[in-house]
Amino acid sequence: MSDEKLTPRNVDFSEWYNQLVLKAELADYAPVRGCMVVRPYGWALWENIQATLDKRFKVTGHVNAAFPLFIPMSFLEKEKAHVEGFSPELAIVTIGGGEKLEEPLVVRPTSETVIGHMYAKWIKSYRDLPVLINQWGNVVRWELRTKLFLRTLEFYWQEGHTAHATEQEAREETRRMLGVYADFAINEGAVPVIQGIKSETEKFAGAVQSTSIEAMMGDTRALQSGTSHFLGQNFAKAFNIQYLDTNNTLQYVWTTSWGLSTRFIGAIIMTHGDDQGLILPPRLAPIQIVLIPIYKNDAERSAVMPVVERIKAELAEFRLKVDDRTEVTPGFKFNDWEMRGVPLRIEIGPKDVEKGTVAMARRDKPGREGKSFVPQAGLSRTVGMLLDEIQASLLARATTFRDSHIFDPKDYAELTEVVQNGWAYSYWCGDNECEAKVKEDTKATTRCIPLEQKEEKGKCIVCGKNAKRKVYFARAY
Amino acid sequence: MSDEKLTPRNVDFSEWYNQLVLKAELADYAPVRGCMVVRPYGWALWENIQATLDKRFKVTGHVNAAFPLFIPMSFLEKEKAHVEGFSPELAIVTIGGGEKLEEPLVVRPTSETVIGHMYAKWIKSYRDLPVLINQWGNVVRWELRTKLFLRTLEFYWQEGHTAHATEQEAREETRRMLGVYADFAINEGAVPVIQGIKSETEKFAGAVQSTSIEAMMGDTRALQSGTSHFLGQNFAKAFNIQYLDTNNTLQYVWTTSWGLSTRFIGAIIMTHGDDQGLILPPRLAPIQIVLIPIYKNDAERSAVMPVVERIKAELAEFRLKVDDRTEVTPGFKFNDWEMRGVPLRIEIGPKDVEKGTVAMARRDKPGREGKSFVPQAGLSRTVGMLLDEIQASLLARATTFRDSHIFDPKDYAELTEVVQNGWAYSYWCGDNECEAKVKEDTKATTRCIPLEQKEEKGKCIVCGKNAKRKVYFARAY
Repeated sequence: MSDEKLTPRNVDFSEWYNQLVLKAELADYAPVRGCMVVRPYGWALWENIQATLDKRFKVTGHVNAAFPLFIPMSFLEKEKAHVEGFSPELAIVTIGGGEKLEEPLVVRPTSETVIGHMYAKWIKSYRDLPVLINQWGNVVRWELRTKLFLRTLEFYWQEGHTAHATEQEAREETRRMLGVYADFAINEGAVPVIQGIKSETEKFAGAVQSTSIEAMMGDTRALQSGTSHFLGQNFAKAFNIQYLDTNNTLQYVWTTSWGLSTRFIGAIIMTHGDDQGLILPPRLAPIQIVLIPIYKNDAERSAVMPVVERIKAELAEFRLKVDDRTEVTPGFKFNDWEMRGVPLRIEIGPKDVEKGTVAMARRDKPGREGKSFVPQAGLSRTVGMLLDEIQASLLARATTFRDSHIFDPKDYAELTEVVQNGWAYSYWCGDNECEAKVKEDTKATTRCIPLEQKEEKGKCIVCGKNAKRKVYFARAY
Repeated sequence: MSDEKLTPRNVDFSEWYNQLVLKAELADYAPVRGCMVVRPYGWALWENIQATLDKRFKVTGHVNAAFPLFIPMSFLEKEKAHVEGFSPELAIVTIGGGEKLEEPLVVRPTSETVIGHMYAKWIKSYRDLPVLINQWGNVVRWELRTKLFLRTLEFYWQEGHTAHATEQEAREETRRMLGVYADFAINEGAVPVIQGIKSETEKFAGAVQSTSIEAMMGDTRALQSGTSHFLGQNFAKAFNIQYLDTNNTLQYVWTTSWGLSTRFIGAIIMTHGDDQGLILPPRLAPIQIVLIPIYKNDAERSAVMPVVERIKAELAEFRLKVDDRTEVTPGFKFNDWEMRGVPLRIEIGPKDVEKGTVAMARRDKPGREGKSFVPQAGLSRTVGMLLDEIQASLLARATTFRDSHIFDPKDYAELTEVVQNGWAYSYWCGDNECEAKVKEDTKATTRCIPLEQKEEKGKCIVCGKNAKRKVYFARAY
């Protein structure tokens, strides 16, 4: 990393983000427009996200598989809304093995179609249901405006695809997996999210109903951080996925799909980061603790290093790195690991060795407040508690920030103001026109109609007609 | 799975393989020619392969990252041998976002070029070296004759790419990673492999020297099961990957690459499988133990199931599945799990409950020999030992089979005979012509010149000229 400081967030949030992703070596620009290279530090973060999500998928009965990268163009055309939604974003292979292909192949933008084709082959009877399969992989969407992690031509994600005997089961699955995403985001990412239903305009191309988790970034813009779709029988009918029920009658299955992508890394960066760099939640951080030996000469080094090695061994249960580089100063190291968002720094110098203590610095509380000197004895327990505290504190801070930027505007004029620096939570009649008007006037879109909401009586903030439910309006990534 | 038996291996080995992959639900044909769907059971096997390999990569200092799927066509052209080798096998994207692309994009067949481009950007000084990065992902090679796992248009693999300051370091890395593959294949896969150097004809397009691990399948054909390449400065010069050495002089780096793919699943199938189906090595098996309750009525069921649940809990350290399906008979289940290659079957019936025993059946020893009745007490220890024994026995059996099919033909005529049902291990002068003659006459190719071989004096089995080293000739997949 370089010594230059980041552009402060309040000067240019977008520029701060771009610089940070590069400087923290999370990702880099690939030579193909809009594509990214996820560097080892970023990929380690993604692997931790994968591991914690995958565990949750297993608990909910899902298994992993791998479906092909290439999909015949004709497959997409079988589901009308799907092909309309994805057509403008496709990368298409027209040449294979030196010859022009008879049928062009789409590089998968998502896999409902090809998985639907396979499910039609595999599913015969009610005994084969439910099918609960997830896939970790890469997909391609030809985006015009790209940004590392948030919107890239190729990105990494998981896509769950399930098939059920009944509508109710499929609807339950859609909600269950949305709940899994919310639980993951909140408890692993320390990213407070709101679960809700997308509007008709914002739903997935081919879904009956889309749901999402929505998070507020440090600039108050919304980031859709995971989606779960109830697909009804749309894909079942397009791909003829049928089963014999207990009465020996052919029935179409009901399907769902749900995905969470490397975009979530963007959510972590923009939820927690500050002007010094990343702040990673301890549960997902590739490095939870950095241990920095402090010494001025060989004698001090000889005193310090054995203690460093002993403490490293004692803290083996944590993801810990000893930074024993000799070509840079401790000050450089402090800045470097702050930039990379390591939650906890431990310094050990000659005086600490004498006193049997270490100096600790919390990444989430810069300056004196986050500094403490603690005994080496029982350090593992101290560190464990501190990491839990940091995790909780990040979530609390992000929640406070979000809640203080959610407004209940009294009229449309106020709505257009508040969405410039926050979200509006307002009654909406559900009409496309009202949604479109807000978007045109303010660039804010409907994010989601939160699940946890009683039906009440209100007036649409746009047109004044009767409305039953509130929606979040926000400018979004 | 269906009730039909597999075509026996000695009737048609290839057909046995194709049927088995489908029936054991390891993989299926995708709707695009030559592509595969890896089904959950096959993917779980691959995930176990990934986990055990990844652990070895970490121990040897490597980190994971993700490089893009698309590579500009011009990149491949920068390394002459590389583009010549891969050109006929490329899938090419010519349309993106509805428009014809100015420069066609290759779907990566391997990533030396794009990674070389990034390394040139990242590597500045000797302090940045070595760079030791691995990537897990998918690649595409437009093969004409395909076979599930062994040769598919898209396949899954890992590709390691390292850059070093010196030639010696890079050569050592090439051998180290070949050693890692051999250790993995032998100790996890129970697949005995031979480490060796590929001939000039058989080497990777762009390598200075290629090495491989070679295994003998059940039909005596050879399967290249992993490769490790010393790339010299070929890609360093093509992509201008330079560093400032300690004297502040610009130097080209030395690079390596190494890969192991889903092809290894084919190696496991064809090394261990028998006419009843798969036999999976316990260390990699997705299910190590299947527990089958045996009962005729509700009373027996009530007696048996609590014991089944208790034993399941006691064996929690193993990957265990209870098959409590009620719609199929125990006999069907036995065949089903034999087909799927589960190493150990435990049956628990009313008599076992009375006696405090269980019946166990080893997959590697069908019939009486593999059956035993053991006490429920201490079962975890018994099972652990038995799985180790199965693992060792599979390796021993495969090694014996291989060694009994490696021949030392006395002349060329005998060579042409023995390679019809085995490998020939013979002196070779190293000339392309001799290699080509064997291939034309017998379809056997040189597999590798084994590393562990003293230089001796011999005569080339083909031309009779002086030769220093022996090579394996074999028909290969």
